[in-house]
Amino acid sequence: MTLNIKQCQQAVEQIFEAEHFEAEPQSLYAPIAYTLRLGGKRLRPTLLVAANSMLGGSVEQVRFAALGIEVFHNFTLLHDDLMDRSPLRRGKPTVYQQWGANAAVLSGDTMYTLAWDYFLRQPLPRMHEVLQCFCHTALEVCEGQQYDMDFEQHDDVSISQYLMMIRKKTAVLLAGALKIGALCADADAATTERLYDFGIHLGLAFQLQDDLLDAYGDTAQLGKATGQDIRDNKKTYLMLRALELGTESQTRELRQLFAAGSEVNEEEKVKRTLAIYNEVGLKEGVEKAIDGEFALAAAELDTIGVSAEAKCPLREVLAMLDGRKK
Amino acid sequence: MTLNIKQCQQAVEQIFEAEHFEAEPQSLYAPIAYTLRLGGKRLRPTLLVAANSMLGGSVEQVRFAALGIEVFHNFTLLHDDLMDRSPLRRGKPTVYQQWGANAAVLSGDTMYTLAWDYFLRQPLPRMHEVLQCFCHTALEVCEGQQYDMDFEQHDDVSISQYLMMIRKKTAVLLAGALKIGALCADADAATTERLYDFGIHLGLAFQLQDDLLDAYGDTAQLGKATGQDIRDNKKTYLMLRALELGTESQTRELRQLFAAGSEVNEEEKVKRTLAIYNEVGLKEGVEKAIDGEFALAAAELDTIGVSAEAKCPLREVLAMLDGRKK
Repeated sequence: MTLNIKQCQQAVEQIFEAEHFEAEPQSLYAPIAYTLRLGGKRLRPTLLVAANSMLGGSVEQVRFAALGIEVFHNFTLLHDDLMDRSPLRRGKPTVYQQWGANAAVLSGDTMYTLAWDYFLRQPLPRMHEVLQCFCHTALEVCEGQQYDMDFEQHDDVSISQYLMMIRKKTAVLLAGALKIGALCADADAATTERLYDFGIHLGLAFQLQDDLLDAYGDTAQLGKATGQDIRDNKKTYLMLRALELGTESQTRELRQLFAAGSEVNEEEKVKRTLAIYNEVGLKEGVEKAIDGEFALAAAELDTIGVSAEAKCPLREVLAMLDGRKK
Repeated sequence: MTLNIKQCQQAVEQIFEAEHFEAEPQSLYAPIAYTLRLGGKRLRPTLLVAANSMLGGSVEQVRFAALGIEVFHNFTLLHDDLMDRSPLRRGKPTVYQQWGANAAVLSGDTMYTLAWDYFLRQPLPRMHEVLQCFCHTALEVCEGQQYDMDFEQHDDVSISQYLMMIRKKTAVLLAGALKIGALCADADAATTERLYDFGIHLGLAFQLQDDLLDAYGDTAQLGKATGQDIRDNKKTYLMLRALELGTESQTRELRQLFAAGSEVNEEEKVKRTLAIYNEVGLKEGVEKAIDGEFALAAAELDTIGVSAEAKCPLREVLAMLDGRKK
């Protein structure tokens, strides 16, 4: 029987509650257990379980793949926080902040190894494809993170380069989770690829939402200050669209605000950047782009040859993410 | 036909020469190509090829496993150099020194992913065992590195704790390389485990030699200054044995030299530590311990049921490492 999305989420919670993540030496594993207990949306393992269930799989079949994909995702956050020197994640001190840079390096490496360990726990008929999908996904995530850092130093990032970057940094992991769920259910190649593409569009929409929420989100609902991308000089979709849509004087002002060595203070920079975003009508334009990606995701789902009922959980994911405020 | 050790080394060199390690983005892959072109002894893939050849395998069968194990080893060096803030490796600037901490984090993560990618390139009948062996080995290497860092802060490390640490940090990777070579040749369980134990003893001898060379090696042959472990307050086998063998006044002096906030300058610290090592006759004692591990390795090799001729390459490795000056 196909699970609904609530049941998928509960299954994922139960899978995580049954794990302890503690071992010796404590100095290595305490930051790992801490990170994995911080929670979060558990979106990737939920997608994995939902795709698998839609195609006739069972939770027991994907228990360890679900753990592996989420442990990997948390490893990438841990190393990202180290590279960004971020003090907070999900409202709590990061591993970098609490234990220092070396702990972040080595506990991160260990978490990544644990992700592989989970994937290897449960030999399934199509294991090799699962592992290759995970490996290629991980490689793209690393590349995406590098492009993201490189783009902070470049003045001439195009929208298509930006979309390539977020595809790698964010979308391929959602797509990979869905594909792995399908492979574990022994799905045919066409279905597997459609689910992968569904995940790509979902991931692009998700990242564009992140960009939008950073500028227009509600601080209380987000649990963090807005405007952080602007303070960090991030080349977001918003910024690149504003440069494209703005008048000559607006783009000149944006470039001055974001120039290295600019002496405008941070809050003034956020305020003036948001003013330009509003002048060019950015919010509506970005919302339209997000809707477009959600529509493409829905179209991929339509073409998959299972009953409408079986597709319900993934449709629920679309609806849930479409309305997200954080 | 079984390869001799020279042929194993040449095969490994050819395998590495055929690879390029370059891809986009260049900022991510240039540090990887740089690291993998620095060379080194390529001991781990050589052991893998030699074990495989001894048991009737072929170089083509282990091409990608040999790459995987060496890429993994170089990844651990890259992250170790980052954690130690080391400026030099093999006489050249480290990635940390040349590209900075963030490049060391992310190019390291990517190298580790490439190691998995190599292992997954070539499906073999006993692939799952190969991957599990690699994964568990990697986990122990991370743990060993953590114990090594933890021990720098502790005053009461025992010899048996030290041996547990170097087993994980150094020996299991040599043992894992040999075991993977055996698994690729579809060896029986007893042979595989004996080769693993051969590797453990070889690895312990290798690390004890490293400790000894740091104190008693020839600077010109080593290509680096001796006494670095003493400057770094490393708890080496030499240090722990000296504390065990020294008189009350010798151990008191050692503890003072190594105490946090000691005001003795570095060269004085090296000089006085070495003087105590000489007084307690440490060199001969450590050489005996090393010979003991080599003898245990040789004994494991003796019990393996292949011809004396087939064992030649691994005996040559023993002889080569036994006489090493760097």
